[in-house]
Amino acid sequence: MVTYGFIGLGIMGAPMAKNLLAKGFELTVWNRDGSKCAELVQAGAKQASTAAACVAASDVTIAMLSDPEAALAVVFGPDGVLGAIDSTKSYVDMSTVDEATSTKICEGVTGAGGRFLEAPVSGSKGPAIQGQLVIMAAGDAALFQECELAFAAMGKKAFHLGAVGAGAKMKLVVNMVMGSMMGAFCEGMALADGAGLSQSDLLEVLSLGAIANPMFALKGPAVMKRDFPPAFPLKHQQKDMRLALALGDELNQTLPIAAASNERYKQALASGHGDNDFAAVYNATKSLQ
Amino acid sequence: MVTYGFIGLGIMGAPMAKNLLAKGFELTVWNRDGSKCAELVQAGAKQASTAAACVAASDVTIAMLSDPEAALAVVFGPDGVLGAIDSTKSYVDMSTVDEATSTKICEGVTGAGGRFLEAPVSGSKGPAIQGQLVIMAAGDAALFQECELAFAAMGKKAFHLGAVGAGAKMKLVVNMVMGSMMGAFCEGMALADGAGLSQSDLLEVLSLGAIANPMFALKGPAVMKRDFPPAFPLKHQQKDMRLALALGDELNQTLPIAAASNERYKQALASGHGDNDFAAVYNATKSLQ
Amino acid sequence: MVTYGFIGLGIMGAPMAKNLLAKGFELTVWNRDGSKCAELVQAGAKQASTAAACVAASDVTIAMLSDPEAALAVVFGPDGVLGAIDSTKSYVDMSTVDEATSTKICEGVTGAGGRFLEAPVSGSKGPAIQGQLVIMAAGDAALFQECELAFAAMGKKAFHLGAVGAGAKMKLVVNMVMGSMMGAFCEGMALADGAGLSQSDLLEVLSLGAIANPMFALKGPAVMKRDFPPAFPLKHQQKDMRLALALGDELNQTLPIAAASNERYKQALASGHGDNDFAAVYNATKSLQ
Amino acid sequence: MVTYGFIGLGIMGAPMAKNLLAKGFELTVWNRDGSKCAELVQAGAKQASTAAACVAASDVTIAMLSDPEAALAVVFGPDGVLGAIDSTKSYVDMSTVDEATSTKICEGVTGAGGRFLEAPVSGSKGPAIQGQLVIMAAGDAALFQECELAFAAMGKKAFHLGAVGAGAKMKLVVNMVMGSMMGAFCEGMALADGAGLSQSDLLEVLSLGAIANPMFALKGPAVMKRDFPPAFPLKHQQKDMRLALALGDELNQTLPIAAASNERYKQALASGHGDNDFAAVYNATKSLQ
Repeated sequence: MVTYGFIGLGIMGAPMAKNLLAKGFELTVWNRDGSKCAELVQAGAKQASTAAACVAASDVTIAMLSDPEAALAVVFGPDGVLGAIDSTKSYVDMSTVDEATSTKICEGVTGAGGRFLEAPVSGSKGPAIQGQLVIMAAGDAALFQECELAFAAMGKKAFHLGAVGAGAKMKLVVNMVMGSMMGAFCEGMALADGAGLSQSDLLEVLSLGAIANPMFALKGPAVMKRDFPPAFPLKHQQKDMRLALALGDELNQTLPIAAASNERYKQALASGHGDNDFAAVYNATKSLQ
Repeated sequence: MVTYGFIGLGIMGAPMAKNLLAKGFELTVWNRDGSKCAELVQAGAKQASTAAACVAASDVTIAMLSDPEAALAVVFGPDGVLGAIDSTKSYVDMSTVDEATSTKICEGVTGAGGRFLEAPVSGSKGPAIQGQLVIMAAGDAALFQECELAFAAMGKKAFHLGAVGAGAKMKLVVNMVMGSMMGAFCEGMALADGAGLSQSDLLEVLSLGAIANPMFALKGPAVMKRDFPPAFPLKHQQKDMRLALALGDELNQTLPIAAASNERYKQALASGHGDNDFAAVYNATKSLQ
Repeated sequence: MVTYGFIGLGIMGAPMAKNLLAKGFELTVWNRDGSKCAELVQAGAKQASTAAACVAASDVTIAMLSDPEAALAVVFGPDGVLGAIDSTKSYVDMSTVDEATSTKICEGVTGAGGRFLEAPVSGSKGPAIQGQLVIMAAGDAALFQECELAFAAMGKKAFHLGAVGAGAKMKLVVNMVMGSMMGAFCEGMALADGAGLSQSDLLEVLSLGAIANPMFALKGPAVMKRDFPPAFPLKHQQKDMRLALALGDELNQTLPIAAASNERYKQALASGHGDNDFAAVYNATKSLQ
Repeated sequence: MVTYGFIGLGIMGAPMAKNLLAKGFELTVWNRDGSKCAELVQAGAKQASTAAACVAASDVTIAMLSDPEAALAVVFGPDGVLGAIDSTKSYVDMSTVDEATSTKICEGVTGAGGRFLEAPVSGSKGPAIQGQLVIMAAGDAALFQECELAFAAMGKKAFHLGAVGAGAKMKLVVNMVMGSMMGAFCEGMALADGAGLSQSDLLEVLSLGAIANPMFALKGPAVMKRDFPPAFPLKHQQKDMRLALALGDELNQTLPIAAASNERYKQALASGHGDNDFAAVYNATKSLQ
């Protein structure tokens, strides 16, 4: 049976790895801060001492890292993934990174004889726990087929979108729309409050109309309580806005709404909300510190 | 039994009036362009010769007009509503107008002894036809109770939000969020296309995630076909953005995302898309004429 | 010799009236808060007890008020200008107002038989004191000719731009450009500071290049000291941005840069900087309270 | 006497090199497209066959290239600058590049034993021809002293702003302010035109006020004629906006006005105005193709 490795056990990676274990996959895990492996080991995973060791112990290694820098460091750094890649190894990077990063990792892995798939996801902490992520894969099509069951353990649907880079770009597009929507929603909540309307009435009205969506239903109460435990940290949302804007810049696609939204997220970052949930952009909207 | 009048038989008003007739309400209608009354008369309505005559023939007169100017003209103009208002008459304005307009109409009607309710709606052509509008009423609470069955004929839920002005403001907040969301959605569709991704894949990915909503599902195919028959005309969406921004200005609530969105709608208006559906803002986003 | 009246002795009006006195014009003054007349009376002016009395005592009455509401109240309110207008009287409104306000005042004055000129100015406290304003007049051309010497006492150049409304619109265009420029300048100052550059070096570099201008030279040191005594109060700049945006809305002219700038001024207003100089928009730019 | 090399003979580089020749400096030139050297050779320069040969023949080599890619390629590419750098050589890069690029070139040159100065300029074609550039240098302070006369031949003032990176950042800040100002100016010109005002009157009014500056005076007539021969190509202005926004992103400094301006430049780029002067952003503002 195919053995899996999992690198990166943060907010997203830990529950994804747990879902693989729960479906009976044989799993070796590695995390920079090794203490985060304990829970997985208790659930049946083996712990590797380095990223390279994790790859060496596995047929297919999955990575879920926080940003392009981390994704590159794990592959190209000392004791990194590349040290153990050969023609029997496959590497699936599910981190959200830009196309250039994904391409560089692909070149590293395939240059060493391995197979590569990028597979960023849509969905944050909740869907990661429930195995309900949407997986946007691109790259080696045969590897995509072979990962079908693993993807099914972590997500409700997996797409193969084309050549490497397509997954990264699709993910950026989705998160750009989501980030602008959250920004627009917070403007609505702030304006309602300023105008003496009940935010609770607004949420109910929104829930009955053409723009009703799970995010408003989930984040609305958080905004009302101004309590923002991180499901999708604001600093990651801002990073995705920035990468999407860079893609638009490259393609000469004007994105004024995303650009205005990005400035809001930056304002919230500057006020120290980077580690809160991205709905904390409400604080910047409402001019709260 | 209470008799109803209905003034304004446009895209929204005509199906709303039909739904009243279908539920057995006795209805007198008036429209500036009288030819639009024919279909309603055939369905059992009486036709009044003036707005005043419509009020005179009815206990409660409902109005559904396109903008503040029209809403004011129908009330205060020659042969207008005020000519027939007395203490036995009630007037329910369901048009989307700003608070100042609504207040002015309220003062006119109540000054003449009548009762007044503002009751703007959320939902466009489709929900109007299906009797699935969301009704955001404010003003005379007893009148709101008495209109319960009429509202139930036209909408799936009716809110009483407070004093006159609250309905107008809630409606603006909702439409502002909707307008920014549509703008953000079109940026995503345009960026996907520019980046060589399939817009159809994007729609499917969006439909599976936390921001899935009926509007994306309905308007996505329209954007792909670049075919924009008006359910909610773009010029009305831009008007609502403008009124919402004016409300923000008044309250010193910053709304940079709505402001950027408004500029997009203006650009689409300047290119002649005012009478198309508001999803035609895609043309401005994609730099198409 | 032609006698002049002067209504509105604020930051701008007081020095303008003094310049008229200094050039030997016979002057009657009125201000809502009468105590502000004392200095002018000491310099040789007569004090009227009402706006109407001021007009009654003068051939040509000049007004310099803070906003459209004040400009309308002085004309149409109790004991207002209209009470004394007849065919021997002329009224010159130098306040910055929108076209609708200016047109309404024009109709009031000319309807009562008088002559009317709108004449908003470019330049704030300093130029007002030095008699170096730029005067943007529109309306009665003969009256413009007759006011030549009075305008020369207050400004360095007077334009006759066309029919009533043209002055108001030109003023809005100029102030919109100025407001966006100040916003852009503050972004540069904030970015320089954040990047570890000397703001003083930036000011010197700017002073040597193609965009060198008196405003940067004057306001740069204020920004560095974060000391913003009001020459042109921020709340008035924001009002002008708002009116210019409304003009753009009416004409379907997209103005995304002005719209983004307006949001900054609103943010500064919300933080309590309305009565500071408009350069205090730097505080909003730098995320200071 | 110190001998100079000059690499990059475009719109800016060619007149800068000519000014060095005119002041009697001994000069060797190189350009990727060698035909552009002819005019300089006629004026007394020697022509090198490669960038490396240019450096080998000179004590101090100055480069003026169009973007970071070109600046890096000339240094690190085949037959590039690094091939001839040793402890007797100095390299002064006057291109407008981001800090990362400048730092990389600095590391390359100093790693090979040479001395390095970054020295981007403010001012476009006209000032380059007239020797009136503003030079924003950073890096080796002794080399800055030694270049004093060369800088005086090309510019009216040279600043030493600190460590390598400071010049690049100052240049980005200045060009960001300039780009937003031009965008704001074009909004003013477009709004004036839409409102039935004379653009020529607007230019005269602006020339008399606190925001009068050489750029408005120079570019105003170009906007009126819609004739945009490139002094500073729009694609370069957009590049600088993009780099400045990236700097702001890195520092969490919100820049909503620059972000809105950048979108305008992108729109103009998408309409094919990249090689026109940056004042051609007017076409995007006025919704012209």
